[in-house]
This record gives sequence, structure tokens and C-alpha cells, in this order.
Amino acid sequence: MPKTELPDPRVSPRFAGVATFCRYPLLDAVCATSRPVDWAIFGVPFDSGVTYRPGARFGPRAIRDASQYVKRFHMEFDVDVCEVLSLADAGDAPVKPYGIKDTLDGVAAWARAIGDPARTKLLAVGGDHSIAYANLRATWERRGKPKDGLGLLHFDSHLDTVDAVWGERWGHASPFIRAIEDGLVDPKAMLSMGVKGPLNSRSDLDFARTRGVSVVTYEDCFRGGQQIIREFRERLAGRETYLSFDIDVVDPAFAPGTGTPSVGGFTSAEVLALLRSFRGVEIVGADVVEVLPDRDPGGVTSLLAAHVMFEVLALDAWKRVHGGHAHDAQGRCLA
Amino acid sequence: MPKTELPDPRVSPRFAGVATFCRYPLLDAVCATSRPVDWAIFGVPFDSGVTYRPGARFGPRAIRDASQYVKRFHMEFDVDVCEVLSLADAGDAPVKPYGIKDTLDGVAAWARAIGDPARTKLLAVGGDHSIAYANLRATWERRGKPKDGLGLLHFDSHLDTVDAVWGERWGHASPFIRAIEDGLVDPKAMLSMGVKGPLNSRSDLDFARTRGVSVVTYEDCFRGGQQIIREFRERLAGRETYLSFDIDVVDPAFAPGTGTPSVGGFTSAEVLALLRSFRGVEIVGADVVEVLPDRDPGGVTSLLAAHVMFEVLALDAWKRVHGGHAHDAQGRCLA
Amino acid sequence: MPKTELPDPRVSPRFAGVATFCRYPLLDAVCATSRPVDWAIFGVPFDSGVTYRPGARFGPRAIRDASQYVKRFHMEFDVDVCEVLSLADAGDAPVKPYGIKDTLDGVAAWARAIGDPARTKLLAVGGDHSIAYANLRATWERRGKPKDGLGLLHFDSHLDTVDAVWGERWGHASPFIRAIEDGLVDPKAMLSMGVKGPLNSRSDLDFARTRGVSVVTYEDCFRGGQQIIREFRERLAGRETYLSFDIDVVDPAFAPGTGTPSVGGFTSAEVLALLRSFRGVEIVGADVVEVLPDRDPGGVTSLLAAHVMFEVLALDAWKRVHGGHAHDAQGRCLA
Amino acid sequence: MPKTELPDPRVSPRFAGVATFCRYPLLDAVCATSRPVDWAIFGVPFDSGVTYRPGARFGPRAIRDASQYVKRFHMEFDVDVCEVLSLADAGDAPVKPYGIKDTLDGVAAWARAIGDPARTKLLAVGGDHSIAYANLRATWERRGKPKDGLGLLHFDSHLDTVDAVWGERWGHASPFIRAIEDGLVDPKAMLSMGVKGPLNSRSDLDFARTRGVSVVTYEDCFRGGQQIIREFRERLAGRETYLSFDIDVVDPAFAPGTGTPSVGGFTSAEVLALLRSFRGVEIVGADVVEVLPDRDPGGVTSLLAAHVMFEVLALDAWKRVHGGHAHDAQGRCLA
Amino acid sequence: MPKTELPDPRVSPRFAGVATFCRYPLLDAVCATSRPVDWAIFGVPFDSGVTYRPGARFGPRAIRDASQYVKRFHMEFDVDVCEVLSLADAGDAPVKPYGIKDTLDGVAAWARAIGDPARTKLLAVGGDHSIAYANLRATWERRGKPKDGLGLLHFDSHLDTVDAVWGERWGHASPFIRAIEDGLVDPKAMLSMGVKGPLNSRSDLDFARTRGVSVVTYEDCFRGGQQIIREFRERLAGRETYLSFDIDVVDPAFAPGTGTPSVGGFTSAEVLALLRSFRGVEIVGADVVEVLPDRDPGGVTSLLAAHVMFEVLALDAWKRVHGGHAHDAQGRCLA
Amino acid sequence: MPKTELPDPRVSPRFAGVATFCRYPLLDAVCATSRPVDWAIFGVPFDSGVTYRPGARFGPRAIRDASQYVKRFHMEFDVDVCEVLSLADAGDAPVKPYGIKDTLDGVAAWARAIGDPARTKLLAVGGDHSIAYANLRATWERRGKPKDGLGLLHFDSHLDTVDAVWGERWGHASPFIRAIEDGLVDPKAMLSMGVKGPLNSRSDLDFARTRGVSVVTYEDCFRGGQQIIREFRERLAGRETYLSFDIDVVDPAFAPGTGTPSVGGFTSAEVLALLRSFRGVEIVGADVVEVLPDRDPGGVTSLLAAHVMFEVLALDAWKRVHGGHAHDAQGRCLA
Repeated sequence: MPKTELPDPRVSPRFAGVATFCRYPLLDAVCATSRPVDWAIFGVPFDSGVTYRPGARFGPRAIRDASQYVKRFHMEFDVDVCEVLSLADAGDAPVKPYGIKDTLDGVAAWARAIGDPARTKLLAVGGDHSIAYANLRATWERRGKPKDGLGLLHFDSHLDTVDAVWGERWGHASPFIRAIEDGLVDPKAMLSMGVKGPLNSRSDLDFARTRGVSVVTYEDCFRGGQQIIREFRERLAGRETYLSFDIDVVDPAFAPGTGTPSVGGFTSAEVLALLRSFRGVEIVGADVVEVLPDRDPGGVTSLLAAHVMFEVLALDAWKRVHGGHAHDAQGRCLA
Repeated sequence: MPKTELPDPRVSPRFAGVATFCRYPLLDAVCATSRPVDWAIFGVPFDSGVTYRPGARFGPRAIRDASQYVKRFHMEFDVDVCEVLSLADAGDAPVKPYGIKDTLDGVAAWARAIGDPARTKLLAVGGDHSIAYANLRATWERRGKPKDGLGLLHFDSHLDTVDAVWGERWGHASPFIRAIEDGLVDPKAMLSMGVKGPLNSRSDLDFARTRGVSVVTYEDCFRGGQQIIREFRERLAGRETYLSFDIDVVDPAFAPGTGTPSVGGFTSAEVLALLRSFRGVEIVGADVVEVLPDRDPGGVTSLLAAHVMFEVLALDAWKRVHGGHAHDAQGRCLA
Repeated sequence: MPKTELPDPRVSPRFAGVATFCRYPLLDAVCATSRPVDWAIFGVPFDSGVTYRPGARFGPRAIRDASQYVKRFHMEFDVDVCEVLSLADAGDAPVKPYGIKDTLDGVAAWARAIGDPARTKLLAVGGDHSIAYANLRATWERRGKPKDGLGLLHFDSHLDTVDAVWGERWGHASPFIRAIEDGLVDPKAMLSMGVKGPLNSRSDLDFARTRGVSVVTYEDCFRGGQQIIREFRERLAGRETYLSFDIDVVDPAFAPGTGTPSVGGFTSAEVLALLRSFRGVEIVGADVVEVLPDRDPGGVTSLLAAHVMFEVLALDAWKRVHGGHAHDAQGRCLA
Repeated sequence: MPKTELPDPRVSPRFAGVATFCRYPLLDAVCATSRPVDWAIFGVPFDSGVTYRPGARFGPRAIRDASQYVKRFHMEFDVDVCEVLSLADAGDAPVKPYGIKDTLDGVAAWARAIGDPARTKLLAVGGDHSIAYANLRATWERRGKPKDGLGLLHFDSHLDTVDAVWGERWGHASPFIRAIEDGLVDPKAMLSMGVKGPLNSRSDLDFARTRGVSVVTYEDCFRGGQQIIREFRERLAGRETYLSFDIDVVDPAFAPGTGTPSVGGFTSAEVLALLRSFRGVEIVGADVVEVLPDRDPGGVTSLLAAHVMFEVLALDAWKRVHGGHAHDAQGRCLA
Repeated sequence: MPKTELPDPRVSPRFAGVATFCRYPLLDAVCATSRPVDWAIFGVPFDSGVTYRPGARFGPRAIRDASQYVKRFHMEFDVDVCEVLSLADAGDAPVKPYGIKDTLDGVAAWARAIGDPARTKLLAVGGDHSIAYANLRATWERRGKPKDGLGLLHFDSHLDTVDAVWGERWGHASPFIRAIEDGLVDPKAMLSMGVKGPLNSRSDLDFARTRGVSVVTYEDCFRGGQQIIREFRERLAGRETYLSFDIDVVDPAFAPGTGTPSVGGFTSAEVLALLRSFRGVEIVGADVVEVLPDRDPGGVTSLLAAHVMFEVLALDAWKRVHGGHAHDAQGRCLA
Repeated sequence: MPKTELPDPRVSPRFAGVATFCRYPLLDAVCATSRPVDWAIFGVPFDSGVTYRPGARFGPRAIRDASQYVKRFHMEFDVDVCEVLSLADAGDAPVKPYGIKDTLDGVAAWARAIGDPARTKLLAVGGDHSIAYANLRATWERRGKPKDGLGLLHFDSHLDTVDAVWGERWGHASPFIRAIEDGLVDPKAMLSMGVKGPLNSRSDLDFARTRGVSVVTYEDCFRGGQQIIREFRERLAGRETYLSFDIDVVDPAFAPGTGTPSVGGFTSAEVLALLRSFRGVEIVGADVVEVLPDRDPGGVTSLLAAHVMFEVLALDAWKRVHGGHAHDAQGRCLA
């Protein structure tokens, strides 16, 4: 029997039924059966942290819809994610649209209590990037508040380490400066991939560089990126690591539906290959953020986001099946 | 305590949470509390019955999303629908995309068994119009198979009484010819409103006229329609009546998202007024069909469909509060 | 046998086949059978005459596609258009995108020679409104150059009697000033319906008023419009009349896909009723113009335009069946 | 010489140039010529006050673009708005996306100082409806803080008199409760037109009714609305009145691009007629709000909003030309 | 004189005229001149075989429209396709929307009889992938029923060798299992390129692998794909080969308009290079399928499909000009 | 103090204010301060030169809107463009929609007089590609009419050296044949990158090849393109060079909003890398053309165009900071 039971497709095709993430069961239903849960996936329909275009509060709903088409067997990893992992949709976290810090505190508190803190990992679906702080905090606490902080794999066009915008210290440009300041993340174990310009000023990179964050620009990936990734993966060996994925790391052609699109980014295939190159890393929590459905006329952004969620789960499934580290990266952009 | 409990909006705003119809609880959850259910709303994600543009299989999902914004208090009727009625989302009926008759049989069998047949009324959300037959059959059986058949209020640009198309007798052009033949509907108690041309041929109206169906064209509404409605409402006094609403009865400007749009139809305001003019009629089952989300770029079609669902429930709530008949119609187009 | 043979729907559904206007046969194919043609419908893919948003050159293609869903039996008139009329798609007229006057001359010359000038009437599908002049000229010549000019039923938000824009005398703001100057149209037999503001200046109406054109604003329709129409219909008794329909006469909600949309216009239902109120008038040529598919995301504009074409043909079919005049107008906006 | 100079259309067609509201000159440029300004139009790109779908912060930009097509002569009023009024685009007010009250205070302070307070009237373009409070306050102060408050003509599907949502007292559901509490508006001189359900609860109307606000539902307009309007116009005689127009008062077919669309509303033509029926009222300030461009695929919402702005200016121009009151309303819905 | 005559562009620009595939003449018109036809292109407007999102029945119409912009000279091959080949649009095959097997039989029978079976090759434009079986069957029969079957170049994200879905053995997931079972295709001469996960289960690949199909995943292309292609091309030397192109083989950014989009696929440039790398192969029939216009807001999917058709024809033209095999592949993904 | 002052983002966020290119000040405002201007950016809202789909007249407006999000610091070049350059928006050039040659003459005359001819460089934003001639002429004249002509870096899918189309010699297919004939451009110093088929005929390349234009097809870039670029950059050493960028050089997935899209083109990342590889070249004028907003549903085309403008400015800023030539190209497609 698989660890995650999906609706019977002979009865309920992929276009049928109340839409949960990837058709996984609701957390309450799983808990009612006393089955343990490896990953709880939840939405955070919150976009009050944005600096440009809002609308990502509708991200969880759109991604639930798009994710109905996500299948369960990862061909490259040769692993059936639903065989290996017990997965559940935990619904949406509580939000207060008029208060960023209040919302982050509320989400963190709510997330802290989901399922079995010792076992259940958390995958948050945004919403804007500000919500990463809340899930990072909940994850860090549930993992026993490691005093060196967590490792962080960060896919994004932006560093998100701005101190404050319009006086607000908790917006979507700031989750990682706060997480580093608060000890949730070890900047030396943080890798930001896909960063690109133009920037507001030269100093935008200062905080990250001063603290030792590894910044890999889009262009760096094609100038020795494979080596960087290999080294970084070594550095993360045995380290509990959080993965944060801002959909704007891919080019707007692949993700038009986002609030601060950045031209000249990865293709979807490149970013999937990058994600897969980190297999072996111990992922203990994650988020996928910044999907803005009203700017996604063909639905490609939500569909990609749903598959990124799946790839994150597959990284964990691969690790559980294989243990240890992968020995070589593939994915074109690293070749 | 209201009969239907909705999510606490202080925790979960209307853009948050797993989307059920109008945020009503899932049927299983209501049943678990032993609370009786007055109306079970379910999707029928099926569009294999269409003769032109498919895609209505995605109707239930889009309407669940749009219906998050439907509120509970009906201002014109001065009634709080969730106070008066216990409502639940029963999920989606089983469908077999490659078989129309198989699907209709399966949906009817599934629907027949929902909740408490003696109490729970059924509101089906399509999907194409072929599914009306299945819900009509289930409703008729649950009401004790009245030998004269049910009354039928039918809002549609088309009569849907075609005998067969391409040899298929169960497609979306045929639900009511089958329902009349099978005794589920009494044609003399059937009112089709909003019918309009052009037609394939003069004989398209023959079946309905021969059997005594009251056909009120869009134009008729403005030539004495109020009188027709008043008389028909009298005729339905005490009669158990089913309401079938094809979204293409409104003009394509109000419902571009449908498979066989018909120009020159009602406005949304006109059709809501028409619906409300039937208060006092004993509605025992209903459907809202033919929403095709891929042709609905501004989302207005799904939003209208969600509110039509609400109006149907409000008709029943009004009846429970007031009993008897309304004595005068309002709605502009009848004035 | 019907006068117009349509594809066998048992073989070729409405979504199948090379798209001709309303699925009518190509003119060459009809000519090959020596069958006479009552109406030749042709596209004029030309939009170089516009003063604001171009793109109507793609109108004929979009309308051919949308018109696949137009059926043949006119329910209100109780007439099967394909029984009464022999209809054909004559393809597209030759155009020279870089020259307005050249194009109008070329279109007029080409149209003059279509089918049997003594019998075949011309329905031009734009393209911008400048092309009306070309079809008016061809029609006037084919009708024997009546020295008083033709009558003109003109549906439009704009009068299109501007002398020149940016020095150009043949653009889409000027077809009727030219037609009146050249004697193609009798201004005293010209009715412009649906005109509305704002205007560029008070003097915009001068030419029309000076020449005796009957201008019925949108608002006038609701202040005694029925009387105006009745009188005008009398005036046109026995008069050969051209009908020119600019899709921007309806509100942008019903026709977003047009280059100079004008808010506050007719609904589709109102405009269809208006068209029908002119039955009895001797229509000898017509055009439907200003459909801009790139601004028509739900496809409603093209669909409406296709049905307006059908209504024009139905007016002629009604006349052939009934002769004489209709004695009363119906249509809501006139009631 | 007209009071407002527009770009020479022989040089700069309507699709050319940096887009200001209706092509009116920038305020700084007008001030540089010492020409007095009758109306200053400014954007308030703010949507942090919404309870459902955000995005109206892009409203001013979209409306500036759409308004390029607004012409100057009002045909129904027979008045050239640019001859009668000196108009200017004052740019956008300062906003603080992370603080509603801060923004309202900032906007009010900024608006208070625009042009010549004794002469220049203010037209604010939203943004969400929360910003109405700021412009109301600035207007009230500039008019000498009339101690009875201003009259208010309010077009909206919602009353916007909710005390607080999620603890926030200044959001887009609350501008008029605050304005009444603060004495800016006299509730007995406030008319809310187009209100409709469903509502969250029966008590939603309590505040307005208790304070004596005249609430005219959509349906009321067709049951004696003309009389209500006539009486209200009398009541406002000589009274300085603010006009607040929420685009969601029209049906979603006419304004899909808004955050809380409400089905079953006015057509554009109906609402323009209603606006015009208030000529004679002394309008001293106004706003047009809740346009959400990302949900406006055909651009019809922005175009309508731009014309509503024009109608407001035309009401003032009419008053300046005619003085006194109009003696009869026209517009269909009042007929 | 070219073998294929196109409309005179001095008269009929690319946006003008009744739309046939790439503006090629209708088959009937070519036959009337007794000119032989090398390729007959026909639509199959059928999508009843889908397992997820329908709508590809509108594919032929959209591709005809988009293909108006396809030019005739292939720059990379240095060949004028219309000089070398006589091409014609054969219209649309007969379809029965309510019956898959019936439709496939009907299409195959109809296609079998097109033009000169000994000379005219068939290019089918879908429609969903189920229709590939019909064209494969017709092609195989017209080529003399080669007992080893045809070679098959298959571009797709999916293998389409599922035995049955919901009991249906002829749907769009099954064309190649049926074709192999029936001997139309030699699995050892079948190459599936671009296959990717996630899959429903590990066993999805079993049939193909067991039968010896060469499966080249998207990732394989970048790990020695050039070698695979070179070897396969050798294997096909002299072998009559069919080419089947499912548009979902490219990434959703390049083809959002398809029913089962698969993230992480080829770019358009990559897939064109791949196609070109097979020059020298003897292509005897082909299809291009799974274009779903309602999900293609920018029209890029149809435009790509039209050019893929052109590339297939160009492969044949190249072969006729050069004979023999190409000696080296280019295209980036093979480099 | 920076050379270009931008609005204070604490007051006016990127979604606020009258939209100028990249928020740069209006030229008049800069001139009023006597500050010299290095680059004047102006729109040319003209599309009467197109051969297929019009609409690019709305390009400047859409690009102004999208460019609000362009930041100032170029990360790859490590240069703050607004520190190094004084930039201004000069508004839109005068256009005459009914006359191509008239417009080009008018634009050239107008552009010739902008700012300080000896200092201010011109960046024109189209509009269709015909306008390149006008800006080339103005630039050539302002640079002292160099008798060898300017160098030209040309990014385009098409060569745009067609002699005439439909008798018109100044359309968007012809700017460079005219510029070469008139001595504005030295064909031996002209590089056309990204050219691709299909073409209308083999001879389409004749003019360019005969005159010695360096034509680098999309495919050539991946077969030794880096070497070509390096050599060409050497050839341009010290040469005043104009850069013309047609957005259709990228694949339609990245730029659906263009009038003659060409499948199989660069990604955005590839084209940005290419642009950057030309640093060191002396850019003295530029244009970015062929953005058609009505075909750009996700807004990605306008956003890319805005960033291409920024890259052009950054090339000049880099040159001013570093002088001399770059010694190695990076960008993936050259690697």
C-alpha cells in the first residue's frame, strides 16, 4: 500500500474533485487514520509584503488547481514519491492581510503545531516571499532550534536581504536578512542561485557578501557553476537544509505570473536540472512562492510551481531511498 | 447557531483555503457531526456530451474557486441562506469521459445515495447539460418517483429536446426529450425561458410544442412575459419542481465562458430578477451547467454561475421562511 | 432542395473544415454549378483607414471562424435563410495596405464584377469602416446608378462624416461624407442610429444635420425612438437601401474587439431588435465592419458580428417571403 | 482659447505621447503659466485596503492610458468640457503601501495643498475605495470645513460603512463610516446607489439606515427610482456635494476589472444616464475607484472609468454654464 | 513554374483570404487541373480521445489561421518547398465526436482514398494524438502494407503506449501500442524523443522498453543524444518512416496551448534543430497534434505547429533534392 | 549627485506616477535645469509600415508602463547607469499615420533638433521597424554625416533589406536597404544577428550578401558565433555604430507581442548575453522596435523591450567608464 493514497482515477479523473495539492489527502483525514505524515503542504495566501505587483494571495488556489495534473513517479530519480512519502494538504495558514509581522507570527505559530513536529516536514506555498520567514522559523523550531541555523538553498532572481522598504522590515524583500539575523539560517550555508540585475544600487549585494552567502548569478551558472554546486553540496553534507524557491528565478516566458519578473532567467528545464543536482542534501523544509495567477494567462506559471513542489518532495524521497550524496550533477546548465 | 457553518473569516479570508462550493463544509464532515443536510451540492466534471466546444469538465473547479466570494445573506429576500439551510459540498460525481450513458447512469446512481434521500435536495454543477438528466433521475427517484413527473423551470437559449445528434441520444442537446420520455418531467409543467434562434430548422421546436412545453423566447419576455410567468407559477403551485439553468441563457457579454453561446440574451440582472420571480415554487432539485472556464478570461461567467447557485438555494430558503406563493413578480424584464 | 447547400453536419461538424462565412459555399463552386447567387459575402481585410487602434484587417478571418456556429433558421422571422436565398463566400477583396484610395478603388472595381450584377447583392465584411465606401459604390453602380442615391441604414457610435483626418479624405471617419458628396447616398434617406459622445467638437454633427441626415442618438432611442423608426421606415418604402453596421454601436462589454469603442451603447439584444424592426425595407447591399480580433479575448465580438451578418440576410429573406412592409416594430428599446 | 489645451492631434495622435489623464496638461506646466486650475486630477495608486483581490494600485496607470481616447465635447449636455474648465493632471499622490492610515493621512495632506484650494476641485483616481476618505477630507478642508459636512453621491454595489475588517478601521469597506463619524459627510445628504447583495449579514445595512443614508438598491431603481432621485436632487440644492464612484456598481460584464465584482448590476449606459440625471448638483470633489487592470482583458473597465471621470467633469461644466437645477431626469432606468 | 501555386501576394496579403494550410490550394482545385499532389494536408478536428483537457478539435482551424504566415523557402536547407513539392489542403477528415474507434476507422478510410495513393503522402493535423493511428493506418496501407511496419519518429513528452484508460483502448494515450500491435509500426524502428516525467507509475515505460522502442528522454538529449540520433538515423536508412509530432514535447512556455502540458521540455529552437537533424530519412507520412487554441493566448502554439508542418515538408523536399543521408547533425542540443 | 534623478521611491513607488521611460525625467524638465543630456529616449508610435499585423503604434505606451520596473544598476557591468549618464524622455515624435515617407521625414527632422546634437544621443522606441531609418538619418546627421556611414549592429529575425512591398519602398521590411543606399550605414560594418527562415525566396538574402553585410543566422551563433562576434567587434573598433533591435529576434515564447513573430529564436538570456558581448563598441544611437502590446497577454514582451533599452544605455555607460574594448565575450550562446 502506498504511503499516500490518491483518488481512484477510474472514478475521479484529474479534472474532478475538490482540489488539494497534487490530490494528496487533507491532513485531518490522514490524522483521523493515525497514519504519520512525512510532509504537510500548506498554503499561505498572503501578498501584503510585496513592493510591486500584488495578487500572490491567489497563488495557493491556482497551484492547487494546476497541481491536479502532477503525477507521482519521478522518472529521472526512478522513485514513486507516493510510495516513499506520506503526504498531506494541511489547508491554508491563518493570515491577516493588514499586518505582515502579525501574519508571520501567526503562520509560524500555526505551522509549528502541524502534525508531528519530530517527523512532519513543512512545505509552504505562497503567497509572497515574506512568508518564507514564517516557515523557516517554524521549521527551525521543530528541528530543535539548531544553534548554527539551517542551511539554505535559495532559488531567486533577487537576494531578498534588503533591510527595510518604506520602513517595513518584514516585507518580501527581507525574509533572509531577518532569518540570518535571528539565527534561523547560517549565511555560510546559504546559496542563492539565479540572482540577476538590474539592481537598485551596487550596495544591494553587500549584506549577502559580507555575511558569506554564496551568490551564484544566472551568468555564473554558465561559467563554472557545476563546480560551485558540487562544492556547496559537499558543504551541506549532513546539514539540515531549507529550500526556498521564488518562481521569478525562471525567465518571464516560463513564469509570467509573478509580481517582480526579471528578464533573462533560467528555462524551466534548466531549473529542474539544478534542483535535481542537489539530491543527497537533507531537505527539512521548503517553500514555493510568488505565483501571481492574474498575470498567468496560459497557466504555465502555476503548472511549473506545482512541479517544483513535486521536485522538492522527490529530493527527499530520493534521499530516503538512497541515503548519502549524489556523486555527479547532470542538468544541462551545469554540464 | 447557523445551520451551515462557514470558515471563520478572521482566520481564513475568502481567498484562503481549500475551495469548496461557497465555502460550505464537505458532506463527509457534516455527516460526521450527524447534522442533517438540506442541500448537497456536487460537481459533474463531464463535457463529452457537447456538440460544439468542450471544456465544461473544468466548470466545477472554476465555480468552486469563484464561489468563494458568494456571501450568505440575500438582500432582496431578506433571508440568511446559511441560517435557514444546512448545506454541504458533496464533491464530484464519478464520471467516465468516454461514455455518456455510462456516466449518466453512474452519476444518477451515485447521486441517488447522497445524504438522506428523504431530506437532502441535490444541486448539480456541470459540466455540460447532458448531466441534467442524471440529476433529474436521481431527484425524481428520491422524491418517490411521482408518476406525473416533476415540474421543470428551464433557463436556456436552447430547448435541449433534440432526439439525437450523430446517433447519440444522450448528449447535451437531448436531456429533456429523454426526461420527458422517461416520465421524469411533465412537459405541461415545463417552462423553457430565454430560448432564441437561429435554429438548425423550423422543426427544432416541434417536440416541445407538441408535448405542451411552455416556450418563452427572449423576445416573449418583453411582450407579456410577466403574465406568462405569473400563470406558470400558479400552475406549479404545490408541484415539486426541478430547476435547470444553462448559463448560455444570458448574453455572451455576461457569460463568454460557455460552449454554445447565443447572442442577444438576458443580462445578468434580468436573469436574477427572473429567478427571483419564481419564489414560492417548490424547488426539489437543480443544476447549473455549461460553464467553460477556458473561454472566460475575466472570470465573469464562473462568478455569475456561483451566484445563480446561491439564488436557487435562496428560493428554497425563502419558501421555508414564508411558505406559500409570492403574489407579484418584480425583476425589470417583467415590469 | 435548399438554395444554399451547407456541409453535411453528420460528416463535418461546425468545428470542422476550411472556414467560409457561415459555412456557405465558395462563390467559384456555386458558379461552377450555374446556380444563381442572391448574396455574395466577401471580406475586406483592410485597416489602414483607422484613426486609433488598427487590427481590423484580421476581422474577416475571425468572423469566418466565429460564423461556423451561425445556424440557418431565423426563429423570430420564421424563415429558413438558406431555403430562401442562394448565398456564397466570394473570398476577400484585393487590398493595398499602403494606400486607402487605391484600395477603395480596387475593392469597388473587384466587387462591381462579382456574380450577376443584376441579381447578386453584396455583403462586405471589414476591415475598418473606410471600406463601406467601396461597397456602396459597387452596389450603387450595380443597381443602375440611381440618381437620387441609395437609402442608408447606418448603425454606429460615430457619424463617419468627417471631411478629413491628418489630410486623408478616405479614412474610416469619412466614408459617408464621400458617399453623400458622390451621390451614392441620399442624406435625406440616411438614418444613423446609436450615435453618441463625447465628440471632438460641437461641429462634428454639422455636416449630417445640414444635409438632413436623421441622427438618432443612443439616448434618443429611449425618448420616442420607435416613432422615429416607424416614420423612417415609411420614408424608405420602395427605396433601395444599403445597411452599414459598425460593431462599435454596441457597448464595449458586447464588442470589446473594436478599434474605437464607445461606452454606453446598445446591448446585443437591443441592436438585434433594432435590426429586425427594419424588416420590409429593401436591402440591396450591406457591410459589417470594425471587428478587431486582438481585443476580443472571449470571442464575443466576432460572434456578434457573424450574427449581424445573418440578420441582414434574414431581412432580405423576410422581404422576399412577405413582400411589403412590416406594420409594427417590436424590439425592447423601441417598446 | 480653450481653458484646457490639449496636444495638437495633427502632431500627436491619441495613441501618442506620455499619457496624462485625458491628455490634460501636467499641473506643474499649467501652474508655470499662472493659469488657474478648476479641477486637478490625480492618481492614488494604493490597494492595501482591499479585503479580496488586490491590484487596483495599477488603476491610475491603466486609466491614464485608456483616457487618451476620451474626447472633449459632451453631446448630451451640449458642452465642451475643455472650453469651460481648466483641467490638469497633478500626478500621483504619495502612498505608503504598508500603511493604510499613514497613506490616507499623507494623501489628504498632499491633496490639501494642490493648486488653489479656494478654486481647484479635486478628482482622485484609485486605487481602492479606502482612498475616498483622504480626498473627502482634503475637499472638506479646502471648502472651509462646512460644519454640516458635504453631501455625497455614492455609486457602489457596497455601502462601505463597515466598522472594521480584521481589526482594520481604514480599509476599503470603511471610508464612509469614518467620513460620517468625522463629520466630513452628512449622512442625511448621502445617497448610495446600486447597492446589492448578497451580504455577509442582515446587519450590514444597519449603520447606513440608522444614520439616515438614502440607500437605493439596484432593484429600487426600477421601482420608483426616478422619484427618489428627483427628491434627493432637491435635497442637495445648494449643498456642496462630493461624488464617489466605485466601478463595481456596474455589472461585471461591463467592469470585469475590479476586486470585488458584484453580479447583476447596471449597464454602462444605465450608469451614465444616472450620473447625468444629477446635473444641477454642486459637485465639489470626486473619486473614481476600484479599477483592477489585471482582470480587465479587453480593457473595457479602464475605458469606462475614464469616461466616468469625464462625466463628473461634465456635470460641473454643465452647472457652470447653466447654473441652477435640472428640471427632469432622463436616462432609461429612471424613465 | 512552382509545383505549388500560392495566392498572389500583390493581391491577397497573408492576412487575406479563406484560410487553407499555409495558403496551399484546396485539393479539389489541384485535382481539377490534373496536377499530381505530393502531400495532402488535412485536419482531424477531434479531441474525444483526451484524458485531461479537451479543445484540440479547434486545432486545425487555428493552425490554418496561423499558417498564413509560413513562408516557402527553407533557409537552413536552401530549398524552396513549393518549388520541389506539389502541396494541397484536403480539408478536414470526417469525425464522429461521440465515437473514437468509429472516428479512427472513418478517418483512415477517408484518408486511404485521398489523391493518388501511390504518390500523395498524408500530413494529418490534429486534433488529439489518437488520430495518429488513423493516419498511420492509411499511410501503411497506401505504402503497400509493408509487413515489417513503418519506422516511426515520435516527438512527445509522453510515450502514448498505454493499453487502456477508463476502459478505452483507442484514446490519445494509446495510438502507438495499437499501431505496434497491428503491425503498422516496427517498434525497433521507433524512436520516441523528449519523453519526460513525472509518470503515473514506473511501469509506464514497460511496453516500449519490452518491445525495443528507443526512448530518448529530454535529459538524454544532453547526455549523448547526438550519438543516439546518428545511430538511429542509420538504422532508418532506406526505411519508410512516419513522423508523429505532439506539440507538448516542447516546454509549456513555447506551447501553452495543449491539453497535457509537461514542464521542462525543449525550446522551439531545440526541437526545430532536432527535426532537421533527421534529414535524409524517408518520411512517408506525418502528423502534428495536440494544439488546443483556447489555452494559447498569444498564439505561439499554433504558430509553432504551423512551422513544424513546414519542417516536415522540408525534410521531404531536402530528400528529393539531395537523396541519400545527411552526414552530420547540427542543432544545438546535439552539438 | 547622480546624472539622472529618479522619483523618490519613498514617495512614489514604481507603480506610481505619470509613466516616462524608466522613470527618467521629461526632456523639457531637464532642459529647464540646463543639465546636459547624454541620451534622449523618444517614442515613435507608428505602425503603418507593417506587412502583416499592426498595433506597434501602442508600443511606446506599453514600454513606458513596463519600464517603470527597470532598475538602474547593471550588475554584470558593475555600473550605475544613472550615475554615469544623463537621461531623459523626450516624449513621442510626430507621426502621420497615413503617410510612411512623410512620417519618416517628420521624425527625422524632429529628432535632428533634440537636445544638444553634439552630445545627446538618440534612442527611438517603436513602432514598427520602418522608423529605424528616421533615427538613423537623424543620428548620422547629428554625428556630422560621416561619409563612410555608421556601423550597424542589427538584431532581427529578418534582414529588412527588401526593396519594396506592394510598391512601397519605406515600409518595415526596407529600412536598411534605404539606409545603405543613402549612405547612412556602411554595409561592411553591418552585422545582422539572429536572421532565420523560412523566407519568401532564396533571393531574400541577395542584397545583404552582395553588399557585404555580415549575416549571422540563429544557427550560426552555435557554430562558431563567438569568433564572428569577436572579429566583428574588432572591425567596429573606433567606429561610430548604431544599434537596431527588433524584438522578434527572440523566440515568440519570449516576445509573443510582435507583428511578424519567427519561431525558433533566441531566449531572452541569450540575447542579453549577445548584447553585452558588444561592450566596447561606440554606440551613437539606437532603436528598439516592433513591440505589439495587444498580442502580449502576460506583458513579457514589453518588459523585455524595456530591459533591452537599458542594456543599450548600459553599453554606453560601460564604455564611458572603461573606454577601449572588452577582451572577451561571455554570454552562453557564444561559449
